[in-house]
Amino acid sequence: MRPLFFLVFCLPFMAQAQVNQDSVAIKKMADEIMTNGTAYDLLRELTKKIGGRLAGSPQQQNAAIWGKRNLEAMKPDKVYMQPCKTPNWQRGGKDFAAIVGINGKPTNQKLEALALGNSLSSNGLVEADVLAVANFDELEKRKDEVKGKIVYYNSEFDPTFIQTFKAYSAAGTYRGTGASRAAKYGAVGVMIHSLSTAPDNAPHTGGMKYDSAYPKIPAVALGPNDAKALYAKAKKGTVRAQIQTYGFFLPDADENNVVAELKGTEHPEEIITIGGHLDSWDVNEGAHDDGAGIVQTMEVLRAMKALNYQPKHTIRFVLFANEENGGKGGAKYAELAKLNKEKHILALESDAGGFTPRSIGVGTTPAQLAYFQKWTPLLKPYGTEVVAGGGGADIGPLTGYDKNIVMSSLTPDSQRYFDLHHAKTDVFENVNKRELLLGAVNIAAFIYLVDQHGVNP
Amino acid sequence: MRPLFFLVFCLPFMAQAQVNQDSVAIKKMADEIMTNGTAYDLLRELTKKIGGRLAGSPQQQNAAIWGKRNLEAMKPDKVYMQPCKTPNWQRGGKDFAAIVGINGKPTNQKLEALALGNSLSSNGLVEADVLAVANFDELEKRKDEVKGKIVYYNSEFDPTFIQTFKAYSAAGTYRGTGASRAAKYGAVGVMIHSLSTAPDNAPHTGGMKYDSAYPKIPAVALGPNDAKALYAKAKKGTVRAQIQTYGFFLPDADENNVVAELKGTEHPEEIITIGGHLDSWDVNEGAHDDGAGIVQTMEVLRAMKALNYQPKHTIRFVLFANEENGGKGGAKYAELAKLNKEKHILALESDAGGFTPRSIGVGTTPAQLAYFQKWTPLLKPYGTEVVAGGGGADIGPLTGYDKNIVMSSLTPDSQRYFDLHHAKTDVFENVNKRELLLGAVNIAAFIYLVDQHGVNP
Repeated sequence: MRPLFFLVFCLPFMAQAQVNQDSVAIKKMADEIMTNGTAYDLLRELTKKIGGRLAGSPQQQNAAIWGKRNLEAMKPDKVYMQPCKTPNWQRGGKDFAAIVGINGKPTNQKLEALALGNSLSSNGLVEADVLAVANFDELEKRKDEVKGKIVYYNSEFDPTFIQTFKAYSAAGTYRGTGASRAAKYGAVGVMIHSLSTAPDNAPHTGGMKYDSAYPKIPAVALGPNDAKALYAKAKKGTVRAQIQTYGFFLPDADENNVVAELKGTEHPEEIITIGGHLDSWDVNEGAHDDGAGIVQTMEVLRAMKALNYQPKHTIRFVLFANEENGGKGGAKYAELAKLNKEKHILALESDAGGFTPRSIGVGTTPAQLAYFQKWTPLLKPYGTEVVAGGGGADIGPLTGYDKNIVMSSLTPDSQRYFDLHHAKTDVFENVNKRELLLGAVNIAAFIYLVDQHGVNP
Repeated sequence: MRPLFFLVFCLPFMAQAQVNQDSVAIKKMADEIMTNGTAYDLLRELTKKIGGRLAGSPQQQNAAIWGKRNLEAMKPDKVYMQPCKTPNWQRGGKDFAAIVGINGKPTNQKLEALALGNSLSSNGLVEADVLAVANFDELEKRKDEVKGKIVYYNSEFDPTFIQTFKAYSAAGTYRGTGASRAAKYGAVGVMIHSLSTAPDNAPHTGGMKYDSAYPKIPAVALGPNDAKALYAKAKKGTVRAQIQTYGFFLPDADENNVVAELKGTEHPEEIITIGGHLDSWDVNEGAHDDGAGIVQTMEVLRAMKALNYQPKHTIRFVLFANEENGGKGGAKYAELAKLNKEKHILALESDAGGFTPRSIGVGTTPAQLAYFQKWTPLLKPYGTEVVAGGGGADIGPLTGYDKNIVMSSLTPDSQRYFDLHHAKTDVFENVNKRELLLGAVNIAAFIYLVDQHGVNP
């Protein structure tokens, strides 16, 4: 009778006692972060004292030193650098675009424009008539008209996607591959509608990639208002435009992932990773993308130390060196994990802005997801729930090494992210202190639960 | 067998068909609002062309005319005004506060300060030593020290409340009653820590009420940074301060609720009300409080007309005249509902800012709540769920007339609201277009469901 008695009568109470204990521990962590959190002050330093930090820039070097110094001050068990090589793209000058003729009449309308990341110099002014297309379908239909033109893609977001990341994915292909797809048919330059939700005129940069089979033509993103106006004009008549860009590559740069570790007391060989990326584009302060993820990662460590939390598993706090234009930080981290035969059980990335957290995404099997979702009632008071689908560019390479590592991510509210993502408006002033800290609270709570109960149902 | 067959086999399919039909209708409404919504442009007009609009001001008169004109342009079945009398408080001048001595040594530190709404003129400079207290408990303990002093209440928000409205409720009592509770013991003036979550120094005004049994001493809110500095100084030594305010009342003003109506096709006598309040404090543009609620209300009407939606019940779209300093708009609406023996089934208020919507709150019985909560899967794709507890200052008076009227409200994310609530920072620039429109989407979806299926389980 003893075992049955235990199972029927004691287990529910024990389970409830465990839930209560977790609830109290999470509340302590939340109170610590919301009351004494330093993430906002650290973000001010990173954005205002260091600023934009594209891999290869002096700012990115400074950011790694800053990160190491601040992590050390939090007194984890160790802090170290992981050197890695990264691309070293230079914008090279002030990108230029203008409308210089409409239906044969000269005009002079400067357009707000930014060269896309990785795009190369135009080698002087490129001037041509504009072929404006709604999408690739239209490009293919009109491929005979492309030769000698500047192609404009109307890569505007679909506003009916409630999750803006879905609209970004749909439009993002024009930024990534639009230049080469137009160059294939003889285009001399490409302009896109910025990948933006903002009702303003700030252009948004971001990574693109040339297909080496075709000429590497210059590619710029236009400010949303200018893009809409250009598209309207080009649908009614012949628009002649100029583009000038200055991009080039220096030899690969030496950057560093910065890693802090709390050693596990029960399973020191099992690793949980939290991280964000330290680099940003050059045109802003990288406050939401991804200064927020960096300081939230640091905040979780700070709070755990402040509360003298001794994890069962080893927890790594990683400031990845290079995500934006190469993904070399995450690749290096995974490469070393494999080399050192490390056992990773879960990795969580915060790289979707410092906005109010809405969910913790977990990319895993249905059974394991159901296990994690039992924690939702513990997270709900802090605004999140566990949902299917997680991961990110920095932690993703770990799955190439071991596909059983659980990929997770903090999902903040997405409505404002693409107002400022990769635009000059991604600055400290557009980050809200409470929203930022609340993100750290939810990461800390989820990681606490993973540490206490593991990842296996 | 027929009825049983019907119940067992057909009902689930019919129910599913109904859910699908609702889902399609809601998606249509959402697409219309996210694509063609004019709420953001209307808000720009209301805030930039009209501006702050305290009841009794010319701006508030203009706002009602603007509201009527724009509602009429949307071609509902009727638009009319409901005249009502409102208080007419005047700030009267530029409020002033300063530290003029520390431990007997003269100093001159101007403090950011705003008189609380309804507080009266100080009749010249009031100068006195400061008695700084953490709360009313400390005031009561130290009541013998109060006479002749300026009392400072450290009514700072508790940052550990995740829902900021809870922190606001807790701290709000110092704004509402602090002056008279100090005057009772002979205080000559009162200063409070602004009811603010912002890491800045903008003071926040808001309503207070004198207890007629005690002298009506001047009361100001200090900017958060100044308040923290003053409190720190007052705990260590003797701080001497000055206050000057200029408040007074003019005779009650003539304002108007503006009401638009879509007449019900099946139950025209049963009324569903949606609304926000047109008035705001004088020191800002009232963009979130409550321009957002106003333009969301108008947007729901616009979208329903654009889609030629013909409601079963009569739907009223109400721009309430006066909430901030008197609540006379909602009182008049309920008074007329009673007078005209109207049958109201549900009222929904949007008065918590134009931020990303998180839930639809419903204040009702558990059985009725469970009925509404079955709609959560239909709302979830747009970011909300149905939760317990709803209502608001403008619709609240309806329950005095008929307690069965379901009170509901849109609950947006609350993290940023008290950064700018009643402060000069509540301006158009701090409203996000997508967040604002998404609020209207969720109101429209919920009201559609109420209209289609009623409020009875």
